[in-house]
Amino acid sequence: MKAIPEPSRRRLVLLERLLSEFTEKNITSQKIEELTGWSAAVVRRDISLLELNFGASNGYKVSDLKGALDKLLDLTPDSPHSCCIVGLGRMGPALLDNRELYESPFKIVAGFDSSVNRTEILRSIFPLHPTTMLEQVIKEEGIRYAILTVEPAEARSIAVRLAACGIKGIVNYTPCVLTVPPGTKVENVSLLTSLENLSALSAGENDIERNEKGA
Amino acid sequence: MKAIPEPSRRRLVLLERLLSEFTEKNITSQKIEELTGWSAAVVRRDISLLELNFGASNGYKVSDLKGALDKLLDLTPDSPHSCCIVGLGRMGPALLDNRELYESPFKIVAGFDSSVNRTEILRSIFPLHPTTMLEQVIKEEGIRYAILTVEPAEARSIAVRLAACGIKGIVNYTPCVLTVPPGTKVENVSLLTSLENLSALSAGENDIERNEKGA
Repeated sequence: MKAIPEPSRRRLVLLERLLSEFTEKNITSQKIEELTGWSAAVVRRDISLLELNFGASNGYKVSDLKGALDKLLDLTPDSPHSCCIVGLGRMGPALLDNRELYESPFKIVAGFDSSVNRTEILRSIFPLHPTTMLEQVIKEEGIRYAILTVEPAEARSIAVRLAACGIKGIVNYTPCVLTVPPGTKVENVSLLTSLENLSALSAGENDIERNEKGA
Repeated sequence: MKAIPEPSRRRLVLLERLLSEFTEKNITSQKIEELTGWSAAVVRRDISLLELNFGASNGYKVSDLKGALDKLLDLTPDSPHSCCIVGLGRMGPALLDNRELYESPFKIVAGFDSSVNRTEILRSIFPLHPTTMLEQVIKEEGIRYAILTVEPAEARSIAVRLAACGIKGIVNYTPCVLTVPPGTKVENVSLLTSLENLSALSAGENDIERNEKGA
């Protein structure tokens, strides 16, 4: 498998999301263009990265394409990928009752908070622990991914601990930049980071003239 | 200003986040490498996209670099960029009390929900409206960005309405793929999408052999 460039990878993830709700048997690159805004040529090039054996003369068979994407993205594991939430203060509780993951290959198996009061009071379908137990529970439960929703002041030190105990990836809902070794990946999805990404995009598109004039 | 490729843009946004918490006067590309994991060469190339006049012999002056990034990312507008939250069911309330944006150039000025009961009961420092008022309030308040936290079933139709009334960007906290015209940008930051992105990355890195064997 070739290394897949980041923008293609992000599009392929969204394509998987799209297909998971798509009810027809076949889909063409033109239809994907219509639904996503990516050009049909870009779509075909992204899909070519999957190195499929089946053609695209009459569009792709949705089940085949979805199957290939699931394999590429490791979305059909033998057992679900275990995840934990670290920080139950603000976003955390919203995620405790997250139906989004119900039929997904990801399963939240533990929550952590530095306030023992909080871990005792909050209701959850999975066990909640004090953050002091982080390393032990992650090891025991074979947890692969962490969802980071702690206060900014705690974020960087917790990320270091998560990486040190072998966490493969962190969904970072804090606006902090985390310092982790290459084996741990980070998705930066805080509201502030997301809005700045949008601002960067629309500034690039709409305000080129204004920027050039230095206004 | 040249068009900036997506991965560079994402790194420059994180660099801005990093510098906003950095307390020293100067920063070198090596120091940025140490903090972010991006190679110093990548850092220098990204920063070269800013077309700065000041050199990097002894590192960058943090205030100059931050200033250039703020300008590029449109983070020092004359008045804050107005935002709205659409969907107050689950993630929404967590975002209503979001201190993350307090000292940022973004300001949430309105919230919407299809349940009038919810808009009347929830407490918020900005006005809450029924979703029927979406178009009117967005126009009146000059709202630029929307934070989408509705139920998946509503997501696609609301996104179409947001784009139609001129919203420049949507932070999409739903796992749905939105169909919007090119003038509206989307950041897909749902938990499921983020976990799939992480899974794609770690599958690409660690499981290359397994994938090649077709297991």
